Amino acid sequence: MIHRLNTTAPDFDTRLRTLLAFESSQDAAIEQAVADILADIQQRGDAALLEYTRRFDRVEADTIAALEIPPADCAAALAALPADQRDALERAAARIRSYHEHQVMHSWQYTEADGTVLGQKVTPLDRVGLYVPGGKAAYPSSLLMNAIPAKVAGVPEIVMVTPTPGGVRNPIVLAAAAVAGIDRVWAIGGAQAVGALAYGTASIPAVDKITGPGNAYVAAAKRRVFGTVGIDMIAGPSEILIIADGTTPPDWVAMDLFSQAEHDELAQAILLSPDAAYLDAVAEAIARLLPDMPRAAIIGTSLKNRGALIQVRDMAEACAIANTIAPEHLEISAAQPERWADLIRHAGAIFMGSHSSESLGDYCAGPNHVLPTARTARFSSPLGVYDFQKRSSIIHVSQAGAQTLGPLAETLALGEGLQAHAASARYRVKS
Amino acid sequence: MIHRLNTTAPDFDTRLRTLLAFESSQDAAIEQAVADILADIQQRGDAALLEYTRRFDRVEADTIAALEIPPADCAAALAALPADQRDALERAAARIRSYHEHQVMHSWQYTEADGTVLGQKVTPLDRVGLYVPGGKAAYPSSLLMNAIPAKVAGVPEIVMVTPTPGGVRNPIVLAAAAVAGIDRVWAIGGAQAVGALAYGTASIPAVDKITGPGNAYVAAAKRRVFGTVGIDMIAGPSEILIIADGTTPPDWVAMDLFSQAEHDELAQAILLSPDAAYLDAVAEAIARLLPDMPRAAIIGTSLKNRGALIQVRDMAEACAIANTIAPEHLEISAAQPERWADLIRHAGAIFMGSHSSESLGDYCAGPNHVLPTARTARFSSPLGVYDFQKRSSIIHVSQAGAQTLGPLAETLALGEGLQAHAASARYRVKS
Repeated sequence: MIHRLNTTAPDFDTRLRTLLAFESSQDAAIEQAVADILADIQQRGDAALLEYTRRFDRVEADTIAALEIPPADCAAALAALPADQRDALERAAARIRSYHEHQVMHSWQYTEADGTVLGQKVTPLDRVGLYVPGGKAAYPSSLLMNAIPAKVAGVPEIVMVTPTPGGVRNPIVLAAAAVAGIDRVWAIGGAQAVGALAYGTASIPAVDKITGPGNAYVAAAKRRVFGTVGIDMIAGPSEILIIADGTTPPDWVAMDLFSQAEHDELAQAILLSPDAAYLDAVAEAIARLLPDMPRAAIIGTSLKNRGALIQVRDMAEACAIANTIAPEHLEISAAQPERWADLIRHAGAIFMGSHSSESLGDYCAGPNHVLPTARTARFSSPLGVYDFQKRSSIIHVSQAGAQTLGPLAETLALGEGLQAHAASARYRVKS
Repeated sequence: MIHRLNTTAPDFDTRLRTLLAFESSQDAAIEQAVADILADIQQRGDAALLEYTRRFDRVEADTIAALEIPPADCAAALAALPADQRDALERAAARIRSYHEHQVMHSWQYTEADGTVLGQKVTPLDRVGLYVPGGKAAYPSSLLMNAIPAKVAGVPEIVMVTPTPGGVRNPIVLAAAAVAGIDRVWAIGGAQAVGALAYGTASIPAVDKITGPGNAYVAAAKRRVFGTVGIDMIAGPSEILIIADGTTPPDWVAMDLFSQAEHDELAQAILLSPDAAYLDAVAEAIARLLPDMPRAAIIGTSLKNRGALIQVRDMAEACAIANTIAPEHLEISAAQPERWADLIRHAGAIFMGSHSSESLGDYCAGPNHVLPTARTARFSSPLGVYDFQKRSSIIHVSQAGAQTLGPLAETLALGEGLQAHAASARYRVKS
């Protein structure tokens, strides 16, 4: 059903490594197809975009304008939602906005004694493109999590692309676009939509950054256009690591493992606890609760292949293992979560205490649910307002300041054999 | 000698686009060689590293330990430097440190009325690897600009790799390593050194992020290990854009163009001014000063192929063009630089006033000289302390908070068909 490991076993390190191993393969056929599509979009623009949309999404249109979904359609989709869903979307959006407002970076500068001013100017990106998958994996919550930080950053224009296979639009996604205040929406998708956003066409404006999840073609296209535009991280399978001291009801923790595992068969759900009896209780809860889950098959496969219940020596060892795994989601389901959170250096999000289930964070607690996967929390951060702002250094050297800096720069430039640098610095020094 | 353009010419947009066009080609042979080297390092570790070092750098060593450059050697290199060079390195380092201290991010959190705590925990990376090129392109200033932000971020361990072709060490680079406080240094380089840092070997510890410039092999290797570790931006040719109102001596501006052009033939130096007579004066200064420059051949080629003097209608138009180009370095060489800087949205660094030559910023003003090239300033920032810190979301939902968030998350999860998410949220609500 699910692996049972123990850190005291001599082969523990090997077994843990095997459990975590995941090779994100790049499919050569997909790479080639995407390269061709991107080149075609770059060259033929709208005409190519219409052709691919016809071929892949079975949507006939003579112009890109016919593929644009007007704001009125999004507003109508929102108005048509059941009241509780509309209310939930709007309240979640308000909470996400409120949290992300704490992330806004501001310009700063300081003046030195000789009048030289140094600083950093912070500006939003001009235009951002948001990719929203069509079909089953269309999550309105992801749309909010991607769009709201860009809005809070002050990005003046946010455009969105979303495929509508067979012409079928997802009303909750359009409603979420209305809630998030997306400026323009086109019913296009795949590598062709990524190419259109990156290079621009006659009808689709080029953007400065593309964010949002997508299938293997979309991921490959984003990787390829990186440099021409910015992109967010390419996400791997989703993961949760739970550290439990045994004080949270076992059913709750079992369901938290399920909520990760239900995403897809490659998702990873791992529980660490020093309490063997508690691990038994969670195993029992898993066996009892699983059959009633609508996505039992996916959950079962994920837990069997990639899940584990691991007995640790103590909570401190659990924290050390968490730092090695650097999980996307970390639940510290313990009576004193602060004590253990202080030991955590690497995690996308830290959920503290038995009431902080990952599911609350996924939708409405406020922090972003786009988080670093596959150990990248060692060096990267949740998606945030800072991903839609950038900095320019400000250097205003006074005449007095140049008398100090000029000779210094000249010495260093000559040490590097760059004589024009040296001369340019020397010119600023009064003879 | 150098192109002369005028924004009022009917073909101006086309000519500007041609001037800016730069295709960063990826060489298939280099890509394959690098893929093979990385796979070999991953598989055979130290043995492969020793072989490649023998083959590419002509350095014989039986162990990696024999390739380590001990801190005492770096300290000795610093002590052996001429006093003015040592003093300049140390004063530049102090100024860089002082500026970057303004960039340190701090953890924050807030408590909502119902006791729920939300926030963001900021932590440094555990270990950073710094690549420093060998031979001609070895710039001690780059070492300082890469290492000091990591130090200021609180990274506990910074390791460095630098090739020593034929066994020849660069004393100024070792001296700079001592000034920057690098923890360990190995005399290895190329794709093999990048692979060793990314995957780790028996002797080289795996790092969490690799920064620093390198040749095409190093750049290709960094691109490939991205995801396993973080990397900084892959830099394109260096660029300067100068906006001049005619109040700066023409010789100064000519030399500033040279200082960019002397980097290499692909470097780009462009001047914008509304004053035709001033452009003539700068052209005259270029012609007069160029023959005496030690790197005249490189400067001449760069200016001829990629440089331009462009007459604009007015300073506001110059700023609009600057925003389109999004230059790595922008000099606003004008009497009222603030007025024009306010109009700038996209630039890596903004140098204001006639005394703020790029050369001062390259070495010792304080801000980082690792800046976004090739229009990426539209969406990215100078290298900074923030590149060596990362964030974890903090979510501590109180029992009272769960009564509000639980039903909200449940509604949204059911809308997305994720029933385990819904159940996990519902468990936290008191019945």
